Amino acid sequence: MRVATEEPGQPRESVRTGGIQVDHYLRALFAPKSIAIIGVSATSTRSGNEFFGKVRGYGFEGRVYAVGRNGGTVDGEPIYPSVKDLPEVPDLVFGAVGMQATPQAMTEAAAAGVKVGVVFTAGFAEMSDDGARIQRDMVARCNELGMRVVGPNCMGVFSTGSRMNLTDVEHLAPGRIGFVSQSGNIALTLFDNARRHDLGFESFVSFGNQADIPAIDYVEYMGQDDAVDVILLYLESLQEDAGADFIARCRAVAERKPIVAIKGGVTDAGRRAAASHTSRLSAAEDIYDAAFEQAGVVQVRDLDHVMAVAEALLRCPPMKGDNIAIVGSGGGHSTVGTDCVERAGMTVPAFDQELRDTFGQYLPPWAPMSNPVDMTGGFTEDLTLFKTLMRYPLSRPEFHGGLSYGLYGEGWRPGLVDDNGRTFESAAPLLATLQEELGKPIVFYTPFAKEHEEAFTAMRLSGVPCYGSLAEAAAALAALKARGSFLARTEGQEGTGQDQASPSGAGPGYALTEYESLQRVADAGVTTVRQELVTSAEEAVAAGEAIGYPVVLKAQLADVAHKSDVNGVRLGLSSADEVAAAFRQMSAIPGAGPGIACTVSQQIAAERELLLGIRKDATFGHTVVVGIGGVLSEVAARVAVMIPPLDSTEFAHAIENSPVAAYLRAWRGKPAVDLEDLHRQVSALHAMCRADADIESVDINPLTVVGSRLQAVDAAVVLESEPETGDPRSRR
Amino acid sequence: MRVATEEPGQPRESVRTGGIQVDHYLRALFAPKSIAIIGVSATSTRSGNEFFGKVRGYGFEGRVYAVGRNGGTVDGEPIYPSVKDLPEVPDLVFGAVGMQATPQAMTEAAAAGVKVGVVFTAGFAEMSDDGARIQRDMVARCNELGMRVVGPNCMGVFSTGSRMNLTDVEHLAPGRIGFVSQSGNIALTLFDNARRHDLGFESFVSFGNQADIPAIDYVEYMGQDDAVDVILLYLESLQEDAGADFIARCRAVAERKPIVAIKGGVTDAGRRAAASHTSRLSAAEDIYDAAFEQAGVVQVRDLDHVMAVAEALLRCPPMKGDNIAIVGSGGGHSTVGTDCVERAGMTVPAFDQELRDTFGQYLPPWAPMSNPVDMTGGFTEDLTLFKTLMRYPLSRPEFHGGLSYGLYGEGWRPGLVDDNGRTFESAAPLLATLQEELGKPIVFYTPFAKEHEEAFTAMRLSGVPCYGSLAEAAAALAALKARGSFLARTEGQEGTGQDQASPSGAGPGYALTEYESLQRVADAGVTTVRQELVTSAEEAVAAGEAIGYPVVLKAQLADVAHKSDVNGVRLGLSSADEVAAAFRQMSAIPGAGPGIACTVSQQIAAERELLLGIRKDATFGHTVVVGIGGVLSEVAARVAVMIPPLDSTEFAHAIENSPVAAYLRAWRGKPAVDLEDLHRQVSALHAMCRADADIESVDINPLTVVGSRLQAVDAAVVLESEPETGDPRSRR
Repeated sequence: MRVATEEPGQPRESVRTGGIQVDHYLRALFAPKSIAIIGVSATSTRSGNEFFGKVRGYGFEGRVYAVGRNGGTVDGEPIYPSVKDLPEVPDLVFGAVGMQATPQAMTEAAAAGVKVGVVFTAGFAEMSDDGARIQRDMVARCNELGMRVVGPNCMGVFSTGSRMNLTDVEHLAPGRIGFVSQSGNIALTLFDNARRHDLGFESFVSFGNQADIPAIDYVEYMGQDDAVDVILLYLESLQEDAGADFIARCRAVAERKPIVAIKGGVTDAGRRAAASHTSRLSAAEDIYDAAFEQAGVVQVRDLDHVMAVAEALLRCPPMKGDNIAIVGSGGGHSTVGTDCVERAGMTVPAFDQELRDTFGQYLPPWAPMSNPVDMTGGFTEDLTLFKTLMRYPLSRPEFHGGLSYGLYGEGWRPGLVDDNGRTFESAAPLLATLQEELGKPIVFYTPFAKEHEEAFTAMRLSGVPCYGSLAEAAAALAALKARGSFLARTEGQEGTGQDQASPSGAGPGYALTEYESLQRVADAGVTTVRQELVTSAEEAVAAGEAIGYPVVLKAQLADVAHKSDVNGVRLGLSSADEVAAAFRQMSAIPGAGPGIACTVSQQIAAERELLLGIRKDATFGHTVVVGIGGVLSEVAARVAVMIPPLDSTEFAHAIENSPVAAYLRAWRGKPAVDLEDLHRQVSALHAMCRADADIESVDINPLTVVGSRLQAVDAAVVLESEPETGDPRSRR
Repeated sequence: MRVATEEPGQPRESVRTGGIQVDHYLRALFAPKSIAIIGVSATSTRSGNEFFGKVRGYGFEGRVYAVGRNGGTVDGEPIYPSVKDLPEVPDLVFGAVGMQATPQAMTEAAAAGVKVGVVFTAGFAEMSDDGARIQRDMVARCNELGMRVVGPNCMGVFSTGSRMNLTDVEHLAPGRIGFVSQSGNIALTLFDNARRHDLGFESFVSFGNQADIPAIDYVEYMGQDDAVDVILLYLESLQEDAGADFIARCRAVAERKPIVAIKGGVTDAGRRAAASHTSRLSAAEDIYDAAFEQAGVVQVRDLDHVMAVAEALLRCPPMKGDNIAIVGSGGGHSTVGTDCVERAGMTVPAFDQELRDTFGQYLPPWAPMSNPVDMTGGFTEDLTLFKTLMRYPLSRPEFHGGLSYGLYGEGWRPGLVDDNGRTFESAAPLLATLQEELGKPIVFYTPFAKEHEEAFTAMRLSGVPCYGSLAEAAAALAALKARGSFLARTEGQEGTGQDQASPSGAGPGYALTEYESLQRVADAGVTTVRQELVTSAEEAVAAGEAIGYPVVLKAQLADVAHKSDVNGVRLGLSSADEVAAAFRQMSAIPGAGPGIACTVSQQIAAERELLLGIRKDATFGHTVVVGIGGVLSEVAARVAVMIPPLDSTEFAHAIENSPVAAYLRAWRGKPAVDLEDLHRQVSALHAMCRADADIESVDINPLTVVGSRLQAVDAAVVLESEPETGDPRSRR
């Protein structure tokens, strides 16, 4: 009954039942007992004739009727003038008549008792306001009469289980994917890509203008169809107010099987394109992001990665964490593969000594063994090495999935036979047995998998996706992680805690005091607030009077990163009495004393606070960071990084192309930060660092902005080694 | 003399000279007159024998000598025991002996006067500390004797112009790309990809451990070689302190021809991999980003896009702006293509009426004509339509480049002949004539271009890249934009100004006053600060006394978004006198009066400020935004978007997976924001919105955080229509 050949490697569901058992009104669409094609002619070759011929030629075993205004016969079969003249009420009508004739033809079908009609014809809401009105009226009339409508302006429907092809496409490979697409062209593209992944389809529908049946209904039907293991959705827009329903019903389906979605029309111009294409406005990208996440839908942003993700979700178990073991052969691929995995939001933790010792039993001493493992070509003598080595990390609870890689395939070593007589093809299914045994996903990369080889097909059909792109392999793992995270959440298992980023460990170095640091940058030509170093209440008061109130009093303490924690900073001191009292309080800080060194400095009511830093890099020398300053520098980090020297054009270009650009522009009535002046300050700081090779880093934070004036308020200079003489400083 | 076949479509440089004229010490590497292969044996098949045979078989016309400790003959040629025994000093030695024998062999070559040596052998710094020491000593000794070293641990060197293949690869297609790669495997991958783009190579070097010659030297040599039009660089690390030199010299090369770079080892684990692979630490990703940008290098992040970008830079003129015209056939592709282009940082501005009218002369009325243009299949009758239509927008100064697209190729319509007798292949070169005429880049997408077709090759060789991926097409345009921007900067042409994001236009709607807004959210169950509405100084003082100082006085003004601009907000009022005085000042605001309505509210010293908003979306109903609040909400925007209802697990998951997560965690000694409480506040706000369908949006900004306490300080409720009764409100 079925043209499908079974795909192995699908342990989840062993029985294929097709759509026949599904109790859903769309059974009439995907598994009809009888079909009427409207728009068949005895004398011309209209597109109705094409579909009439195609659906019969593809092996559909139900009854197929031809309908055409002018009657006659086609291929020896009668052409009925209207659906109401047919000997029975068909389950499905397929309308391929002209736009003007469509409403009457569909309404007659509805009146005759047909439950579902497909409108292939274009020229409705996507074309004009008139078309939109005609579409609306047609759907309303059909609905009143009890018929639901697919389209208009769609590419049709296909079902492997029903041997029914009502699309433009000649042949679709059978398989276990159900595909719901708003666009025909995107569907064609993904059909083509599916071949490269040895994937096929159980069912497909293109829904075009989505005038009646909402996308979620198709998804729901495929959710109920046991012959579908993964549902693929290309979506440009939902119907008005359909969002909540979409989320809730998708989620119910996603609890049973994975849904992969790609959203078209995400940017402003993209939305304009979607509107002209399907006559709807798309909602904003971030709202759809949230909707897919909450619905348990795995979203893919890159069309090139969609089938890779579908393959992973079809063939691999979901991943219960994000620690990836990378075990394969080849240095460059291990490096780029690690980049791809980490950029896709997963981690590649170093292997411990025990694992490295184990690998050392198999690999030469120069092979990198610390995740990634690079077996440096050894697999050509023993093709089981991929499985043998991957077993060790994946057997550990702290590793959740594996990426294996190498120059695998006849494209590299034609006819290779390893020391045990294994070929690329015969060894290909080995990793899948490990995946099945451990219940953790494994994906494979070889650059040759962009082309067809029997070995790659064998690996895929055994259950391990074989990709020709590291980015696709990483996208696949990310999807398995998202799927695992969703399933864990639905079972209430996922903790919400997340490791906090630990502060980067400070290397050795000697920190100057705040006072001296600020003096140094002032001497270098950076504009700083006025400050005085004092060691008594009297000096503090004198400084306050000289600087002008309000002032800030800061204790110069060693090894206290955040002075405010020990009350080492007093802000807003407005009189001599307040300054004197504050100084006496500082003296009482544990470890301080009556002669504690403090600074008195001008208090700035900053409109903006910047971070300006320079540090030495082993490769590039001094590197500059300009970012949001103050306490937000950590939690709302937005920086521009640049390598001096830069002229003012390159400096402005670097700022404008960085995430900190908006913060430096004019906002809330404040003028833009003066980039010329900022460039001058950066250059002064850089000159200072160049002149003193002992300076390891300088942080100015905050560099305050008041009007167009920049002023450094706090600085921290770190030297590489302790200077021989000088002011009090402390080892960092 | 050359195996190269000319590639058409290269107007920039018409004469291929090969490396022969280059005045650079690496001429001895890429264009040697004589070569010695060290490690050839008369009795075994060592890898030296392989290279000896290969370099002669590939057509190298200079002299090739075999060197091997044990002498004898190979292929009828003598094997010399040492380089010093050769009848002449060769330009280049290629070392393929074991690791232990390498230092002596290379040192002997250096002593004999050889200028450049390639060390193919592995087992040096990438393997062990011992290997690093041996490598260091060998290079130092060779350098002292006047010889420079390529490698060790490299894949060799290749030159089309010299007909010299000293690599593992059997054959490299000739072409106009020079390729400098730290990794052999990545090179193999890109060689393979190059075929799909009909690209070939003039020269290639793999530099492995980079023990001596820095990467920039190879780049510089290829910069001087007129047979190279684009330089491709795969880089894992530079040598210590080599950064500034790299930037300056790359920039000098980039001013003459494009350099495309991909950096491997960008993440922490990636750096670990790079270190074990090439024995160096990589610098941080953002520093390399800055370095490439400043050096005028076009960086590509996705390995899958590298050859697409190289193709564009080879074949197309640079792009002098970022407005793209998208003209092709097919709705879904136009939508996804627009997404790709905008995500890659360019814009797709709408066409004006004049352009749309022009397109209307060629296309049916239902064809979208507003950028993207979708010719809805019409090209099958007239294959010149792509060029005809693209001419109109690209002739406008405001458009800088074009993306054309469609189901083009025999893969879609085998044997198609259009109404004028054109085939896919004969029509393919048309767009290139437009590109050349207008000096603006055009790239083409068809899903079938993943496979080889003569038509695609014809299009590429004419000068228009033909891609099988929309993401690649967008990456190519982005690279042409980056190239154009760099060239403009070097010529001092680029303005540094950038359009500011204009505030989103507020739709119609009625805004409640601040006082009423805060009351509404308080009534709904959101925790708010205490506030009182007052209309006299006496009431204000009474409220201040009741609430407790310090308090804030705010004028309730219509149509003033930012009250602080008109002194409508007074903070820190600490006594009855201050409150009374502040109230009297408010009365003096233009348009106010002695009975001005003000609020008196508790002043909160917030440790953090959040934004909490709800708005109605046409598709999804209410959507929630949680973000950084206060004045930073605009310029340091970091938000989580979610669609209620969410239980506390989904809420926490949404927060933790958003950019605002770090801001809500514990930092600087402050506890993490209580997500349970935040979820409660969100739920209360959502319940309020659901109960009153007239509420269009609610913004709470700031929602202050003090310790673990959340309090709404300011709110803005906007209704869809003016309520019939109620407190003072204003039309927004």
